[in-house]
Amino acid sequence: MREPKRRKILLSEDDIPKRWVNIQAYLSSLPNPPLNPQTGEPVNPDELGAIFPRALIEQEATMEREVEIPEPVREAYKVWRPTPLIYAERLKRYLDTPAHIFYKNEGVSPPGSHKPNTAVAQAFFNKEEGIKRLTTETGAGQWGSALSFAGRLFDLEVKVYMVRVSYEQKPGRRILIESYGASIVPSPSADTEPGRKFLDEDPDNPGSLGIAISEAVFDAATREDTNYSLGSVLNHVLLHQTVIGEEALRQMEIVGMEPDVIIGCVGGGSNFAGLAFPFLARKLKEGGSTRFVAVEPEACPTLTRGEYTYDFGDTAGMTPLLPMYTLGHSFIPPGIHAGGLRYHGMAPLISHLYKEGLIEAKSYHQREVFDAALTFARAEGILPAPETAHAVKAAIDEALRAKEEGREVVILFNFSGHGYFDLSAYEQYLRGNLEDYSYPKEKVIEAMKRLPKVQFQK
Amino acid sequence: MREPKRRKILLSEDDIPKRWVNIQAYLSSLPNPPLNPQTGEPVNPDELGAIFPRALIEQEATMEREVEIPEPVREAYKVWRPTPLIYAERLKRYLDTPAHIFYKNEGVSPPGSHKPNTAVAQAFFNKEEGIKRLTTETGAGQWGSALSFAGRLFDLEVKVYMVRVSYEQKPGRRILIESYGASIVPSPSADTEPGRKFLDEDPDNPGSLGIAISEAVFDAATREDTNYSLGSVLNHVLLHQTVIGEEALRQMEIVGMEPDVIIGCVGGGSNFAGLAFPFLARKLKEGGSTRFVAVEPEACPTLTRGEYTYDFGDTAGMTPLLPMYTLGHSFIPPGIHAGGLRYHGMAPLISHLYKEGLIEAKSYHQREVFDAALTFARAEGILPAPETAHAVKAAIDEALRAKEEGREVVILFNFSGHGYFDLSAYEQYLRGNLEDYSYPKEKVIEAMKRLPKVQFQK
Repeated sequence: MREPKRRKILLSEDDIPKRWVNIQAYLSSLPNPPLNPQTGEPVNPDELGAIFPRALIEQEATMEREVEIPEPVREAYKVWRPTPLIYAERLKRYLDTPAHIFYKNEGVSPPGSHKPNTAVAQAFFNKEEGIKRLTTETGAGQWGSALSFAGRLFDLEVKVYMVRVSYEQKPGRRILIESYGASIVPSPSADTEPGRKFLDEDPDNPGSLGIAISEAVFDAATREDTNYSLGSVLNHVLLHQTVIGEEALRQMEIVGMEPDVIIGCVGGGSNFAGLAFPFLARKLKEGGSTRFVAVEPEACPTLTRGEYTYDFGDTAGMTPLLPMYTLGHSFIPPGIHAGGLRYHGMAPLISHLYKEGLIEAKSYHQREVFDAALTFARAEGILPAPETAHAVKAAIDEALRAKEEGREVVILFNFSGHGYFDLSAYEQYLRGNLEDYSYPKEKVIEAMKRLPKVQFQK
Repeated sequence: MREPKRRKILLSEDDIPKRWVNIQAYLSSLPNPPLNPQTGEPVNPDELGAIFPRALIEQEATMEREVEIPEPVREAYKVWRPTPLIYAERLKRYLDTPAHIFYKNEGVSPPGSHKPNTAVAQAFFNKEEGIKRLTTETGAGQWGSALSFAGRLFDLEVKVYMVRVSYEQKPGRRILIESYGASIVPSPSADTEPGRKFLDEDPDNPGSLGIAISEAVFDAATREDTNYSLGSVLNHVLLHQTVIGEEALRQMEIVGMEPDVIIGCVGGGSNFAGLAFPFLARKLKEGGSTRFVAVEPEACPTLTRGEYTYDFGDTAGMTPLLPMYTLGHSFIPPGIHAGGLRYHGMAPLISHLYKEGLIEAKSYHQREVFDAALTFARAEGILPAPETAHAVKAAIDEALRAKEEGREVVILFNFSGHGYFDLSAYEQYLRGNLEDYSYPKEKVIEAMKRLPKVQFQK
């Protein structure tokens, strides 16, 4: 294979995709539907109207192969898209591997991650339907800062419930959220009924994504002018992220190479889906041998150790039941630094693809992940977010395997965000203060006892 | 004028300039030469050989209009260059101004500022001459992280002396420096003779750029395998930064507009020079009416309130005497958050241009600067470094003046770096905890009494 002539494969603003790719329309079987936990019946789309705009509810279930991207969303994308595809020749030389490694750099967005791809879309559709205010949860803060940024672009108020342990330990993204003019509180907070309940039970509750979701949903459900915005998991969120893969498809065509393996880290699943789905849609349509690898932390190994069943999306049990790999909605993962990957469940679409054998999954401990991150930073110059570093680790492993086997493999991974807001985690790693958490089996067993008593429909 | 069709004006890697622009060759009069403080005579280039490689000493004095950029330096530039020129239509709409505002985004480099433009060049030329190790000073850390990044690319050890107050208050860039594998100590440190002297006098010495320079120069002068690397002020540093303006010239040609005013913040002067010099060279050759505005903090107003005379570049008086606007080498500026602008002097070339009336200067208080930064972040999405925010403030003022006067002015400013490593400063601003320091007149008068007793040569 001929090495690419340029390190950065760039597209012009005119190349920003005009449509999102809907993987559902390419599948021979679909995930089971979300259920109303009270009735055990499939959720009526109208029930979601209290917290989501009509357009997004429709996108959740559409069977069209493509969904048009509205012009104002494409305009917003122009603030940072198209993102560059980078040929990692410096990493290749450092690893001395015959593999060709590419990464899609989603860290170039103003809030520093892939999250604005759906944030600006969600802000637009909510604005269109007269909503004035959005609520959301955030872990390490990637999603909260993305929605605050998007709210500013579309003139919407934003309120962010941030997992308390991150709020206190990682002030960076919190300050960025405030700099964009959004309001933010540590969760559990005294601002909502579920938040107060969790605080009553344990005033020192460190919070979790599940709890913060409960608070944000409650806030939105109880205010007429307010909707809720989720940063991952749901079909429409994954749909919006497909701009990543569509651009990458085009960029790989320019290079004239075909990825043998596509890699992304998974918390809820959105950045992995964003890169993988357009390639997977093409594979399902036209065939091919590309592998897809989802990478998760050993401390929260949803796909590799979870159970495929109906579970709540949040900790308080306020959301519909979703068919997914889960460690139990009451499971609070150990405090690893990849805050965005500390989620008990997995997007129903990703879960379905994994169950069907269309994608693979892999888990890593955090120290080996930070080690890979520093290798990458020293070769390529850019420091990855701890979440992204999981994908980096898997890409390096694939490249080293290619070296062992003497094969000229083409590796493409999603560089979902930079690590400049996570420097305290790097400091702890450099000082030798990071620990690996083994798979928290006992806690998961405990949490799995509290699964909702709902079966899959035959 | 027709608005640009695209928000981002991009160039390809093939467009990375092949030569740096040497402003000295375009001037009808030159700055006075650096002097040896012992003899009062012009410095013999050989005397600089103890701390600088031959190639850079030659660049310091060359009268060629262009200096070739070696291919390995252009290869290193490809990691992040060319940088985008952005048409700030969102800021334009927010300000409701007829002005067209453009910014050159140097924040896209891995360490987040313009500094790597000279760091990779200096690393290359030192490596070429057999040097194994570089020392340097850093204030807020932009320069230290840039040189650490460059050292990694060219396989050189790097030791950074970081102003103690920044080392303690702003861990972000310090951790980044360590992530790149460089070593770093707070300055004044016990590692050098001048450092120990400052610590003996005052164990709580908060440090200054001048002191850190003294330490780094001492370290380099006393080790055979080690050279010193400066991040601003000197002619060769400003020369390397001209890649910024050369790319911008080409990008403005693509847009088909001519800047009426070009703006940059100034500490030592390198990012301002980098954008301005290629445009100024063209103006000196071909005429034109473009204005050039250097922006500095009111707390360290070197150009607007300093005296043009010979002074030391560092606090301990170890460097040659440079002809420059200065507040006195013993002046320690108030602790504003734009650490990169806390320097007592100004690049001899910038000083000369200002004295000759070829450029203008302006100073601002830090609160109005942070206010402008948030306006910019909320309109354009990107948070500027506090240093860069000085240029943002001046650009907004120009745009508002254009609005008052109803003129379709074209404004181009250098977005020298992003503010993601400076979030604690934004937090203090958001909490109302930042204060403005008035011009520290008494301290300057005191420092000016300690100027070296050397006159300009007639």
